Amino acid sequence: MNFKKITIIGIGLIGSSFALALKKQGFNGTITGVGRNEDNLIKAKEMGIVDEYSTSHAEGVTNADLILLASPVGHFEGIIKNIRDNIKKGAIVTDVGSVKAGVLKKIRPLIPEGVSFVGGHPIAGKECSGIYAATPDLFKNAKCIITPEENTNREALDKVIDIWKKTGAVTVIMSPEEHDLVFAAVSHLPHVVAYALVNSILDVDESILKHGGKGLKDMTRIALSPTELWRDICSYNREDILMTLRKFSSSITHMINLFEESDWDGLEKEFTRAKKARQGIEPD
Amino acid sequence: MNFKKITIIGIGLIGSSFALALKKQGFNGTITGVGRNEDNLIKAKEMGIVDEYSTSHAEGVTNADLILLASPVGHFEGIIKNIRDNIKKGAIVTDVGSVKAGVLKKIRPLIPEGVSFVGGHPIAGKECSGIYAATPDLFKNAKCIITPEENTNREALDKVIDIWKKTGAVTVIMSPEEHDLVFAAVSHLPHVVAYALVNSILDVDESILKHGGKGLKDMTRIALSPTELWRDICSYNREDILMTLRKFSSSITHMINLFEESDWDGLEKEFTRAKKARQGIEPD
Repeated sequence: MNFKKITIIGIGLIGSSFALALKKQGFNGTITGVGRNEDNLIKAKEMGIVDEYSTSHAEGVTNADLILLASPVGHFEGIIKNIRDNIKKGAIVTDVGSVKAGVLKKIRPLIPEGVSFVGGHPIAGKECSGIYAATPDLFKNAKCIITPEENTNREALDKVIDIWKKTGAVTVIMSPEEHDLVFAAVSHLPHVVAYALVNSILDVDESILKHGGKGLKDMTRIALSPTELWRDICSYNREDILMTLRKFSSSITHMINLFEESDWDGLEKEFTRAKKARQGIEPD
Repeated sequence: MNFKKITIIGIGLIGSSFALALKKQGFNGTITGVGRNEDNLIKAKEMGIVDEYSTSHAEGVTNADLILLASPVGHFEGIIKNIRDNIKKGAIVTDVGSVKAGVLKKIRPLIPEGVSFVGGHPIAGKECSGIYAATPDLFKNAKCIITPEENTNREALDKVIDIWKKTGAVTVIMSPEEHDLVFAAVSHLPHVVAYALVNSILDVDESILKHGGKGLKDMTRIALSPTELWRDICSYNREDILMTLRKFSSSITHMINLFEESDWDGLEKEFTRAKKARQGIEPD
Protein backbone atom coordinates (compact mmCIF):
# COMPACT_ATOMS: atom_id res chain seq x y z
CA MET A 1 0.00 0.00 0.00
CA ASN A 2 3.07 2.20 0.49
CA PHE A 3 1.40 4.24 3.22
CA LYS A 4 3.21 4.36 6.53
CA LYS A 5 0.76 6.63 8.28
CA ILE A 6 -2.90 7.11 7.50
CA THR A 7 -4.85 9.81 9.30
CA ILE A 8 -8.62 9.56 9.42
CA ILE A 9 -10.45 12.74 10.32
CA GLY A 10 -13.89 11.82 11.66
CA ILE A 11 -14.05 8.56 13.60
CA GLY A 12 -17.65 7.54 12.97
CA LEU A 13 -19.11 4.53 11.20
CA ILE A 14 -17.33 5.12 7.87
CA GLY A 15 -13.96 6.26 9.23
CA SER A 16 -13.81 3.42 11.76
CA SER A 17 -14.89 0.76 9.27
CA PHE A 18 -12.24 2.00 6.83
CA ALA A 19 -9.59 1.57 9.54
CA LEU A 20 -10.86 -1.89 10.51
CA ALA A 21 -10.99 -3.03 6.88
CA LEU A 22 -7.36 -2.00 6.32
CA LYS A 23 -6.22 -3.69 9.51
CA LYS A 24 -8.02 -6.86 8.50
CA GLN A 25 -6.11 -6.71 5.19
CA GLY A 26 -2.85 -6.62 7.10
CA PHE A 27 -2.04 -2.91 6.95
CA ASN A 28 0.91 -2.56 9.30
CA GLY A 29 1.46 1.17 9.31
CA THR A 30 -0.02 3.60 11.80
CA ILE A 31 -3.64 4.71 11.71
CA THR A 32 -4.26 8.01 13.47
CA GLY A 33 -7.78 9.02 14.39
CA VAL A 34 -8.74 12.68 14.60
CA GLY A 35 -11.98 14.03 15.99
CA ARG A 36 -13.52 16.55 18.33
CA ASN A 37 -14.79 14.05 20.89
CA GLU A 38 -11.86 12.73 22.91
CA ASP A 39 -13.96 10.04 24.66
CA ASN A 40 -14.84 8.62 21.27
CA LEU A 41 -11.17 8.61 20.23
CA ILE A 42 -10.11 6.88 23.46
CA LYS A 43 -12.74 4.20 22.83
CA ALA A 44 -11.59 3.84 19.22
CA LYS A 45 -8.04 3.24 20.42
CA GLU A 46 -9.18 0.76 23.08
CA MET A 47 -11.17 -1.10 20.44
CA GLY A 48 -8.12 -1.33 18.17
CA ILE A 49 -9.70 0.84 15.49
CA VAL A 50 -6.91 3.44 15.58
CA ASP A 51 -3.35 3.20 16.81
CA GLU A 52 -3.14 6.75 18.05
CA TYR A 53 -5.34 9.80 18.11
CA SER A 54 -5.44 13.55 18.32
CA THR A 55 -8.15 16.12 18.87
CA SER A 56 -6.11 18.57 16.78
CA HIS A 57 -6.54 18.42 13.02
CA ALA A 58 -3.11 19.95 12.43
CA GLU A 59 -1.29 17.67 14.84
CA GLY A 60 -3.13 14.57 13.61
CA VAL A 61 -2.07 14.93 9.98
CA THR A 62 1.61 15.52 10.66
CA ASN A 63 3.67 13.05 8.63
CA ALA A 64 0.56 11.33 7.26
CA ASP A 65 0.92 9.81 3.77
CA LEU A 66 -2.84 9.57 3.33
CA ILE A 67 -5.48 11.76 4.94
CA LEU A 68 -9.10 10.58 4.79
CA LEU A 69 -11.77 13.19 5.42
CA ALA A 70 -14.62 11.21 6.99
CA SER A 71 -16.51 14.01 8.73
CA PRO A 72 -19.67 15.68 7.39
CA VAL A 73 -18.92 17.48 4.08
CA GLY A 74 -19.82 20.82 5.62
CA HIS A 75 -16.69 20.60 7.77
CA PHE A 76 -14.20 19.87 4.98
CA GLU A 77 -13.36 23.48 4.17
CA GLY A 78 -12.59 24.31 7.80
CA ILE A 79 -10.56 21.12 8.22
CA ILE A 80 -8.42 21.83 5.15
CA LYS A 81 -7.76 25.35 6.48
CA ASN A 82 -6.64 23.81 9.77
CA ILE A 83 -4.33 21.20 8.25
CA ARG A 84 -2.95 22.82 5.08
CA ASP A 85 0.26 24.02 6.70
CA ASN A 86 0.91 20.62 8.28
CA ILE A 87 0.31 18.25 5.36
CA LYS A 88 3.60 16.83 4.19
CA LYS A 89 4.69 17.16 0.58
CA GLY A 90 3.64 14.17 -1.51
CA ALA A 91 0.73 13.28 0.78
CA ILE A 92 -2.68 12.40 -0.61
CA VAL A 93 -5.93 13.83 0.73
CA THR A 94 -9.11 11.90 -0.01
CA ASP A 95 -12.64 11.94 1.38
CA VAL A 96 -15.89 10.01 1.71
CA GLY A 97 -18.31 12.89 1.10
CA SER A 98 -21.68 12.53 -0.64
CA VAL A 99 -21.17 15.58 -2.81
CA LYS A 100 -18.13 16.41 -4.89
CA ALA A 101 -18.04 19.34 -7.31
CA GLY A 102 -19.42 21.99 -4.94
CA VAL A 103 -17.05 20.94 -2.18
CA LEU A 104 -14.07 20.73 -4.52
CA LYS A 105 -14.69 24.31 -5.62
CA LYS A 106 -14.22 25.39 -2.00
CA ILE A 107 -11.27 23.20 -1.06
CA ARG A 108 -9.29 22.96 -4.31
CA PRO A 109 -7.71 26.41 -3.85
CA LEU A 110 -6.71 25.48 -0.31
CA ILE A 111 -4.77 22.29 -1.16
CA PRO A 112 -1.04 23.10 -0.92
CA GLU A 113 1.38 22.62 -3.81
CA GLY A 114 2.73 19.06 -3.92
CA VAL A 115 -0.28 17.57 -2.16
CA SER A 116 -2.82 15.55 -4.20
CA PHE A 117 -6.54 15.51 -3.68
CA VAL A 118 -8.60 12.57 -4.96
CA GLY A 119 -12.30 12.48 -4.09
CA GLY A 120 -14.07 9.29 -3.06
CA HIS A 121 -17.59 8.30 -2.02
CA PRO A 122 -18.25 4.82 -0.68
CA ILE A 123 -21.91 3.83 -1.12
CA ALA A 124 -22.19 2.12 2.21
CA GLY A 125 -24.10 2.86 5.32
CA LYS A 126 -26.18 1.37 8.02
CA GLU A 127 -29.12 2.32 10.14
CA CYS A 128 -26.76 2.79 13.07
CA SER A 129 -23.86 5.20 13.19
CA GLY A 130 -20.74 5.58 15.30
CA ILE A 131 -17.81 3.35 16.17
CA TYR A 132 -19.89 0.61 17.78
CA ALA A 133 -21.57 -0.05 14.44
CA ALA A 134 -18.22 -0.18 12.62
CA THR A 135 -17.21 -3.38 10.86
CA PRO A 136 -14.30 -4.37 8.63
CA ASP A 137 -16.82 -5.70 6.10
CA LEU A 138 -18.85 -2.50 5.65
CA PHE A 139 -17.38 -1.84 2.19
CA LYS A 140 -17.29 -5.46 1.01
CA ASN A 141 -18.77 -5.47 -2.51
CA ALA A 142 -20.06 -1.92 -1.96
CA LYS A 143 -19.41 0.57 -4.72
CA CYS A 144 -16.96 3.35 -4.04
CA ILE A 145 -17.11 6.21 -6.53
CA ILE A 146 -13.71 7.80 -7.20
CA THR A 147 -13.91 11.27 -8.73
CA PRO A 148 -10.66 12.41 -10.33
CA GLU A 149 -10.41 15.67 -12.26
CA GLU A 150 -8.42 16.20 -15.44
CA ASN A 151 -5.32 17.35 -13.62
CA THR A 152 -5.49 14.82 -10.75
CA ASN A 153 -2.10 13.22 -10.10
CA ARG A 154 -2.25 9.80 -11.76
CA GLU A 155 -0.16 8.04 -9.12
CA ALA A 156 -2.28 9.42 -6.28
CA LEU A 157 -5.41 8.30 -8.12
CA ASP A 158 -4.08 4.76 -8.48
CA LYS A 159 -3.20 4.63 -4.80
CA VAL A 160 -6.66 5.79 -3.73
CA ILE A 161 -8.31 3.25 -6.04
CA ASP A 162 -6.00 0.58 -4.66
CA ILE A 163 -6.76 1.31 -1.01
CA TRP A 164 -10.52 1.23 -1.56
CA LYS A 165 -10.18 -2.08 -3.37
CA LYS A 166 -8.30 -3.35 -0.31
CA THR A 167 -11.33 -2.50 1.87
CA GLY A 168 -13.39 -4.79 -0.36
CA ALA A 169 -15.13 -2.01 -2.29
CA VAL A 170 -15.73 -2.04 -6.04
CA THR A 171 -14.40 1.25 -7.41
CA VAL A 172 -16.22 3.21 -10.09
CA ILE A 173 -14.68 6.27 -11.78
CA MET A 174 -16.83 9.35 -12.39
CA SER A 175 -16.07 13.02 -12.82
CA PRO A 176 -17.13 15.13 -9.82
CA GLU A 177 -19.91 16.64 -11.95
CA GLU A 178 -21.22 13.27 -13.12
CA HIS A 179 -21.10 11.98 -9.56
CA ASP A 180 -23.14 14.90 -8.28
CA LEU A 181 -25.80 14.56 -10.94
CA VAL A 182 -26.14 10.80 -10.38
CA PHE A 183 -26.31 11.11 -6.60
CA ALA A 184 -28.61 14.12 -6.76
CA ALA A 185 -31.06 11.76 -8.45
CA VAL A 186 -30.52 8.51 -6.55
CA SER A 187 -29.69 9.82 -3.09
CA HIS A 188 -30.16 13.55 -2.47
CA LEU A 189 -33.60 13.76 -4.13
CA PRO A 190 -34.89 10.69 -2.23
CA HIS A 191 -33.78 12.26 1.04
CA VAL A 192 -35.64 15.51 0.32
CA VAL A 193 -38.68 13.48 -0.79
CA ALA A 194 -38.64 11.41 2.42
CA TYR A 195 -38.58 14.56 4.56
CA ALA A 196 -41.37 16.12 2.44
CA LEU A 197 -43.46 12.94 2.64
CA VAL A 198 -43.38 12.90 6.43
CA ASN A 199 -44.25 16.61 6.54
CA SER A 200 -47.16 16.27 4.14
CA ILE A 201 -48.61 13.44 6.24
CA LEU A 202 -48.31 15.73 9.28
CA ASP A 203 -50.08 18.40 7.22
CA VAL A 204 -53.01 16.02 6.64
CA ASP A 205 -53.28 15.25 10.37
CA GLU A 206 -50.53 15.23 12.99
CA SER A 207 -51.95 12.15 14.66
CA ILE A 208 -52.01 9.68 11.77
CA LEU A 209 -48.33 9.06 11.06
CA LYS A 210 -48.38 6.32 13.70
CA HIS A 211 -50.72 4.20 11.59
CA GLY A 212 -48.05 3.67 8.95
CA GLY A 213 -46.88 0.12 8.36
CA LYS A 214 -43.61 -1.34 7.11
CA GLY A 215 -43.93 0.37 3.72
CA LEU A 216 -44.04 3.86 5.21
CA LYS A 217 -41.29 3.06 7.70
CA ASP A 218 -39.02 1.84 4.90
CA MET A 219 -39.82 4.90 2.82
CA THR A 220 -39.16 7.42 5.54
CA ARG A 221 -36.22 5.79 7.30
CA ILE A 222 -33.79 8.18 5.63
CA ALA A 223 -35.71 11.08 7.21
CA LEU A 224 -33.86 9.99 10.36
CA SER A 225 -30.58 11.12 8.79
CA PRO A 226 -28.63 13.98 10.41
CA THR A 227 -30.35 17.19 9.31
CA GLU A 228 -27.20 19.34 9.43
CA LEU A 229 -25.34 16.94 7.13
CA TRP A 230 -28.22 16.97 4.65
CA ARG A 231 -28.56 20.72 4.80
CA ASP A 232 -24.89 20.94 3.76
CA ILE A 233 -25.24 18.36 0.99
CA CYS A 234 -28.24 20.28 -0.36
CA SER A 235 -26.41 23.60 -0.33
CA TYR A 236 -23.31 22.13 -2.03
CA ASN A 237 -25.32 20.34 -4.71
CA ARG A 238 -28.08 22.94 -5.11
CA GLU A 239 -28.33 23.00 -8.93
CA ASP A 240 -28.44 19.26 -9.50
CA ILE A 241 -30.91 18.62 -6.69
CA LEU A 242 -33.12 21.47 -7.90
CA MET A 243 -33.16 19.93 -11.38
CA THR A 244 -34.13 16.49 -10.03
CA LEU A 245 -36.71 18.00 -7.66
CA ARG A 246 -38.34 19.77 -10.60
CA LYS A 247 -38.47 16.51 -12.58
CA PHE A 248 -39.95 14.78 -9.56
CA SER A 249 -42.48 17.56 -9.09
CA SER A 250 -43.55 17.09 -12.74
CA SER A 251 -43.89 13.37 -12.10
CA ILE A 252 -46.21 14.08 -9.13
CA THR A 253 -48.19 16.63 -11.14
CA HIS A 254 -48.62 13.99 -13.85
CA MET A 255 -49.92 11.52 -11.25
CA ILE A 256 -52.35 14.17 -9.95
CA ASN A 257 -53.62 14.75 -13.50
CA LEU A 258 -54.21 11.04 -14.00
CA PHE A 259 -56.23 10.91 -10.77
CA GLU A 260 -58.21 14.01 -11.76
CA GLU A 261 -59.07 12.45 -15.10
CA SER A 262 -59.69 9.03 -13.50
CA ASP A 263 -57.27 7.71 -16.10
CA TRP A 264 -56.60 4.40 -14.38
CA ASP A 265 -55.02 2.82 -17.45
CA GLY A 266 -52.59 5.74 -17.63
CA LEU A 267 -51.89 5.43 -13.90
CA GLU A 268 -51.20 1.71 -14.14
CA LYS A 269 -48.83 2.41 -17.02
CA GLU A 270 -46.84 4.74 -14.76
CA PHE A 271 -46.83 2.13 -12.00
CA THR A 272 -45.66 -0.56 -14.42
CA ARG A 273 -42.85 1.62 -15.76
CA ALA A 274 -41.58 2.18 -12.21
CA LYS A 275 -42.01 -1.44 -11.13
CA LYS A 276 -40.11 -2.76 -14.11
CA ALA A 277 -37.21 -0.38 -13.52
CA ARG A 278 -37.17 -1.13 -9.77
CA GLN A 279 -37.04 -4.86 -10.49
CA GLY A 280 -33.87 -4.19 -12.46
CA ILE A 281 -31.98 -3.01 -9.36
CA GLU A 282 -29.95 -5.71 -7.71
CA PRO A 283 -31.49 -6.90 -4.43
CA ASP A 284 -30.01 -5.83 -1.07
CA MET B 1 -65.27 -18.76 18.09
CA ASN B 2 -68.63 -20.22 17.15
CA PHE B 3 -67.64 -20.65 13.51
CA LYS B 4 -67.92 -24.17 12.13
CA LYS B 5 -66.84 -23.34 8.61
CA ILE B 6 -64.68 -20.46 7.49
CA THR B 7 -64.19 -19.83 3.79
CA ILE B 8 -61.20 -17.79 2.68
CA ILE B 9 -61.39 -16.41 -0.83
CA GLY B 10 -57.87 -15.67 -2.04
CA ILE B 11 -55.20 -18.04 -0.76
CA GLY B 12 -52.16 -15.77 -0.81
CA LEU B 13 -49.94 -14.52 1.99
CA ILE B 14 -52.72 -12.89 4.02
CA GLY B 15 -55.42 -15.53 3.51
CA SER B 16 -53.01 -18.39 4.27
CA SER B 17 -51.52 -16.70 7.31
CA PHE B 18 -55.03 -16.06 8.66
CA ALA B 19 -55.81 -19.78 8.32
CA LEU B 20 -52.53 -20.83 9.94
CA ALA B 21 -53.02 -18.37 12.82
CA LEU B 22 -56.49 -19.78 13.56
CA LYS B 23 -55.27 -23.36 13.39
CA LYS B 24 -52.43 -22.51 15.76
CA GLN B 25 -55.06 -21.12 18.16
CA GLY B 26 -56.90 -24.43 18.10
CA PHE B 27 -59.69 -23.65 15.63
CA ASN B 28 -61.28 -27.04 15.01
CA GLY B 29 -63.87 -26.23 12.37
CA THR B 30 -63.32 -26.45 8.64
CA ILE B 31 -61.30 -23.94 6.67
CA THR B 32 -62.16 -23.87 2.98
CA GLY B 33 -59.84 -22.16 0.52
CA VAL B 34 -61.19 -20.64 -2.67
CA GLY B 35 -59.08 -19.36 -5.54
CA ARG B 36 -58.60 -19.43 -9.28
CA ASN B 37 -55.34 -21.37 -9.28
CA GLU B 38 -56.04 -25.01 -8.46
CA ASP B 39 -52.35 -25.94 -8.12
CA ASN B 40 -52.03 -23.30 -5.42
CA LEU B 41 -55.10 -24.70 -3.61
CA ILE B 42 -53.77 -28.26 -3.79
CA LYS B 43 -50.47 -27.06 -2.29
CA ALA B 44 -52.37 -25.16 0.42
CA LYS B 45 -54.22 -28.33 1.38
CA GLU B 46 -51.03 -30.40 1.34
CA MET B 47 -49.38 -27.84 3.59
CA GLY B 48 -52.27 -27.99 6.06
CA ILE B 49 -53.27 -24.39 5.43
CA VAL B 50 -56.81 -25.28 4.34
CA ASP B 51 -58.90 -28.39 4.99
CA GLU B 52 -60.70 -28.35 1.67
CA TYR B 53 -60.83 -26.15 -1.38
CA SER B 54 -62.86 -25.09 -4.35
CA THR B 55 -62.16 -23.12 -7.49
CA SER B 56 -65.78 -21.99 -7.47
CA HIS B 57 -66.67 -18.96 -5.37
CA ALA B 58 -70.29 -20.06 -5.06
CA GLU B 59 -69.50 -23.64 -4.10
CA GLY B 60 -66.77 -22.61 -1.68
CA VAL B 61 -68.98 -20.38 0.46
CA THR B 62 -71.84 -22.88 0.83
CA ASN B 63 -72.59 -23.34 4.54
CA ALA B 64 -69.77 -21.02 5.61
CA ASP B 65 -70.33 -19.07 8.83
CA LEU B 66 -67.56 -16.61 8.04
CA ILE B 67 -66.33 -15.59 4.61
CA LEU B 68 -63.02 -13.73 4.39
CA LEU B 69 -62.34 -11.83 1.17
CA ALA B 70 -58.56 -11.94 0.83
CA SER B 71 -58.20 -11.26 -2.89
CA PRO B 72 -57.29 -7.89 -4.43
CA VAL B 73 -60.02 -5.30 -3.65
CA GLY B 74 -60.77 -4.88 -7.33
CA HIS B 75 -62.22 -8.42 -7.36
CA PHE B 76 -64.60 -8.00 -4.41
CA GLU B 77 -67.60 -6.77 -6.39
CA GLY B 78 -67.43 -9.68 -8.81
CA ILE B 79 -66.91 -12.18 -6.00
CA ILE B 80 -69.95 -10.93 -4.08
CA LYS B 81 -72.01 -11.20 -7.25
CA ASN B 82 -70.83 -14.81 -7.61
CA ILE B 83 -71.56 -15.83 -4.03
CA ARG B 84 -74.58 -13.77 -2.98
CA ASP B 85 -77.10 -16.49 -3.73
CA ASN B 86 -75.07 -19.11 -1.86
CA ILE B 87 -74.26 -17.28 1.37
CA LYS B 88 -76.25 -18.79 4.19
CA LYS B 89 -78.47 -16.60 6.38
CA GLY B 90 -76.67 -15.37 9.46
CA ALA B 91 -73.23 -15.65 7.88
CA ILE B 92 -70.68 -12.88 8.20
CA VAL B 93 -68.63 -11.53 5.30
CA THR B 94 -65.42 -9.70 6.11
CA ASP B 95 -62.35 -8.67 4.13
CA VAL B 96 -58.71 -7.60 4.33
CA GLY B 97 -58.81 -4.84 1.73
CA SER B 98 -56.70 -1.67 1.87
CA VAL B 99 -59.59 0.60 0.97
CA LYS B 100 -63.02 0.64 2.54
CA ALA B 101 -65.62 3.32 1.74
CA GLY B 102 -65.34 3.17 -2.04
CA VAL B 103 -65.52 -0.63 -2.06
CA LEU B 104 -68.43 -0.67 0.40
CA LYS B 105 -70.40 1.62 -1.87
CA LYS B 106 -70.15 -1.04 -4.58
CA ILE B 107 -70.72 -4.17 -2.50
CA ARG B 108 -73.17 -2.97 0.18
CA PRO B 109 -76.18 -3.14 -2.17
CA LEU B 110 -75.17 -6.69 -3.14
CA ILE B 111 -75.05 -8.16 0.37
CA PRO B 112 -78.19 -10.29 0.86
CA GLU B 113 -80.69 -9.67 3.67
CA GLY B 114 -79.67 -11.51 6.85
CA VAL B 115 -75.96 -11.52 5.98
CA SER B 116 -73.62 -9.14 7.82
CA PHE B 117 -70.67 -7.35 6.32
CA VAL B 118 -67.87 -6.10 8.60
CA GLY B 119 -64.79 -4.59 6.96
CA GLY B 120 -61.28 -5.31 8.19
CA HIS B 121 -57.75 -4.33 7.18
CA PRO B 122 -54.78 -6.03 8.82
CA ILE B 123 -51.65 -3.86 8.61
CA ALA B 124 -49.32 -6.71 7.90
CA GLY B 125 -47.30 -7.70 4.94
CA LYS B 126 -43.96 -8.95 3.86
CA GLU B 127 -41.60 -8.54 0.95
CA CYS B 128 -42.63 -11.97 -0.27
CA SER B 129 -46.13 -13.02 -1.19
CA GLY B 130 -47.94 -16.32 -1.67
CA ILE B 131 -48.52 -19.36 0.50
CA TYR B 132 -44.85 -20.20 0.94
CA ALA B 133 -44.36 -16.92 2.79
CA ALA B 134 -47.38 -17.55 5.04
CA THR B 135 -46.84 -17.81 8.77
CA PRO B 136 -49.21 -18.16 11.75
CA ASP B 137 -47.44 -15.19 13.36
CA LEU B 138 -47.94 -12.69 10.54
CA PHE B 139 -50.57 -10.75 12.49
CA LYS B 140 -48.95 -11.02 15.91
CA ASN B 141 -49.07 -7.53 17.44
CA ALA B 142 -49.97 -6.09 14.04
CA LYS B 143 -52.84 -3.64 13.94
CA CYS B 144 -56.04 -4.73 12.27
CA ILE B 145 -58.42 -1.88 11.48
CA ILE B 146 -62.08 -2.89 11.79
CA THR B 147 -64.44 -0.53 9.98
CA PRO B 148 -68.07 -0.90 11.11
CA GLU B 149 -70.79 1.40 9.83
CA GLU B 150 -73.65 2.81 11.87
CA ASN B 151 -75.98 -0.03 11.02
CA THR B 152 -73.44 -2.87 11.23
CA ASN B 153 -74.78 -5.85 13.18
CA ARG B 154 -73.25 -5.57 16.65
CA GLU B 155 -72.89 -9.32 17.17
CA ALA B 156 -71.18 -9.80 13.82
CA LEU B 157 -68.82 -6.91 14.66
CA ASP B 158 -67.88 -8.52 17.98
CA LYS B 159 -67.20 -11.83 16.27
CA VAL B 160 -64.96 -10.25 13.66
CA ILE B 161 -63.05 -8.33 16.33
CA ASP B 162 -62.74 -11.55 18.33
CA ILE B 163 -61.36 -13.62 15.45
CA TRP B 164 -58.72 -11.02 14.57
CA LYS B 165 -57.67 -10.89 18.21
CA LYS B 166 -57.27 -14.67 18.06
CA THR B 167 -54.80 -14.26 15.18
CA GLY B 168 -52.69 -12.07 17.48
CA ALA B 169 -53.69 -8.76 15.93
CA VAL B 170 -54.49 -5.61 17.89
CA THR B 171 -57.85 -4.34 16.63
CA VAL B 172 -58.54 -0.65 16.07
CA ILE B 173 -62.02 0.65 15.23
CA MET B 174 -62.42 3.33 12.56
CA SER B 175 -65.26 4.34 10.29
CA PRO B 176 -64.69 3.37 6.62
CA GLU B 177 -64.22 7.06 5.79
CA GLU B 178 -61.69 7.66 8.57
CA HIS B 179 -59.83 4.51 7.54
CA ASP B 180 -59.59 5.65 3.93
CA LEU B 181 -58.31 9.11 4.85
CA VAL B 182 -55.70 7.73 7.23
CA PHE B 183 -54.48 5.08 4.78
CA ALA B 184 -54.57 7.48 1.85
CA ALA B 185 -51.96 9.44 3.78
CA VAL B 186 -49.81 6.70 5.32
CA SER B 187 -50.04 4.02 2.63
CA HIS B 188 -51.64 4.99 -0.68
CA LEU B 189 -49.79 8.31 -1.03
CA PRO B 190 -46.40 6.69 -0.24
CA HIS B 191 -47.05 4.06 -2.93
CA VAL B 192 -47.81 6.69 -5.57
CA VAL B 193 -44.75 8.68 -4.42
CA ALA B 194 -42.50 5.61 -4.69
CA TYR B 195 -43.66 4.94 -8.26
CA ALA B 196 -43.22 8.64 -9.14
CA LEU B 197 -39.75 8.73 -7.58
CA VAL B 198 -38.51 5.82 -9.68
CA ASN B 199 -39.99 7.38 -12.81
CA SER B 200 -38.46 10.79 -12.18
CA ILE B 201 -35.03 9.19 -11.72
CA LEU B 202 -35.57 7.44 -15.07
CA ASP B 203 -36.51 10.85 -16.50
CA VAL B 204 -33.15 12.26 -15.38
CA ASP B 205 -31.27 9.37 -17.00
CA GLU B 206 -32.40 5.78 -17.57
CA SER B 207 -28.99 4.41 -16.67
CA ILE B 208 -28.48 5.84 -13.20
CA LEU B 209 -31.07 4.04 -11.09
CA LYS B 210 -28.56 1.23 -10.53
CA HIS B 211 -26.30 3.55 -8.53
CA GLY B 212 -28.86 3.82 -5.74
CA GLY B 213 -27.84 2.49 -2.33
CA LYS B 214 -29.82 1.09 0.58
CA GLY B 215 -31.73 4.35 1.11
CA LEU B 216 -33.17 4.34 -2.40
CA LYS B 217 -33.90 0.62 -2.29
CA ASP B 218 -35.81 1.02 0.97
CA MET B 219 -37.71 4.00 -0.41
CA THR B 220 -38.74 2.34 -3.63
CA ARG B 221 -39.37 -1.22 -2.41
CA ILE B 222 -43.13 -0.63 -2.46
CA ALA B 223 -42.87 0.20 -6.16
CA LEU B 224 -42.52 -3.60 -6.52
CA SER B 225 -46.15 -3.98 -5.40
CA PRO B 226 -48.70 -5.44 -7.83
CA THR B 227 -49.67 -2.64 -10.19
CA GLU B 228 -53.21 -3.89 -10.80
CA LEU B 229 -53.97 -3.99 -7.09
CA TRP B 230 -52.68 -0.45 -6.67
CA ARG B 231 -54.55 0.80 -9.67
CA ASP B 232 -57.75 -0.49 -8.04
CA ILE B 233 -56.92 0.99 -4.64
CA CYS B 234 -56.28 4.35 -6.32
CA SER B 235 -59.55 4.28 -8.21
CA TYR B 236 -61.56 3.29 -5.11
CA ASN B 237 -59.92 5.93 -2.91
CA ARG B 238 -59.55 8.65 -5.54
CA GLU B 239 -60.69 11.67 -3.51
CA ASP B 240 -58.61 11.02 -0.41
CA ILE B 241 -55.47 10.14 -2.36
CA LEU B 242 -55.90 13.24 -4.54
CA MET B 243 -56.14 15.39 -1.42
CA THR B 244 -52.98 13.89 0.08
CA LEU B 245 -51.15 14.07 -3.27
CA ARG B 246 -51.97 17.78 -3.47
CA LYS B 247 -50.63 18.36 0.05
CA PHE B 248 -47.51 16.42 -0.86
CA SER B 249 -47.10 18.40 -4.05
CA SER B 250 -47.25 21.62 -1.99
CA SER B 251 -44.63 20.20 0.33
CA ILE B 252 -42.33 19.53 -2.66
CA THR B 253 -43.02 22.99 -4.09
CA HIS B 254 -42.07 24.47 -0.74
CA MET B 255 -38.79 22.50 -0.79
CA ILE B 256 -38.10 23.76 -4.33
CA ASN B 257 -38.70 27.36 -3.18
CA LEU B 258 -36.27 26.93 -0.30
CA PHE B 259 -33.61 25.63 -2.73
CA GLU B 260 -34.29 28.48 -5.15
CA GLU B 261 -33.87 31.02 -2.37
CA SER B 262 -30.88 29.11 -0.94
CA ASP B 263 -32.75 29.25 2.35
CA TRP B 264 -30.74 26.53 4.08
CA ASP B 265 -32.02 27.45 7.54
CA GLY B 266 -35.58 27.07 6.26
CA LEU B 267 -34.66 23.75 4.62
CA GLU B 268 -33.06 22.40 7.77
CA LYS B 269 -36.20 23.42 9.69
CA GLU B 270 -38.29 21.26 7.33
CA PHE B 271 -35.85 18.35 7.72
CA THR B 272 -35.96 18.69 11.49
CA ARG B 273 -39.76 18.72 11.59
CA ALA B 274 -39.84 15.48 9.58
CA LYS B 275 -37.04 13.80 11.53
CA LYS B 276 -38.67 14.55 14.87
CA ALA B 277 -42.01 13.14 13.72
CA ARG B 278 -40.36 10.06 12.16
CA GLN B 279 -38.51 9.38 15.42
CA GLY B 280 -41.91 9.20 17.09
CA ILE B 281 -42.96 6.12 15.08
CA GLU B 282 -42.33 2.88 16.87
CA PRO B 283 -39.40 0.94 15.42
CA ASP B 284 -40.00 -2.12 13.19
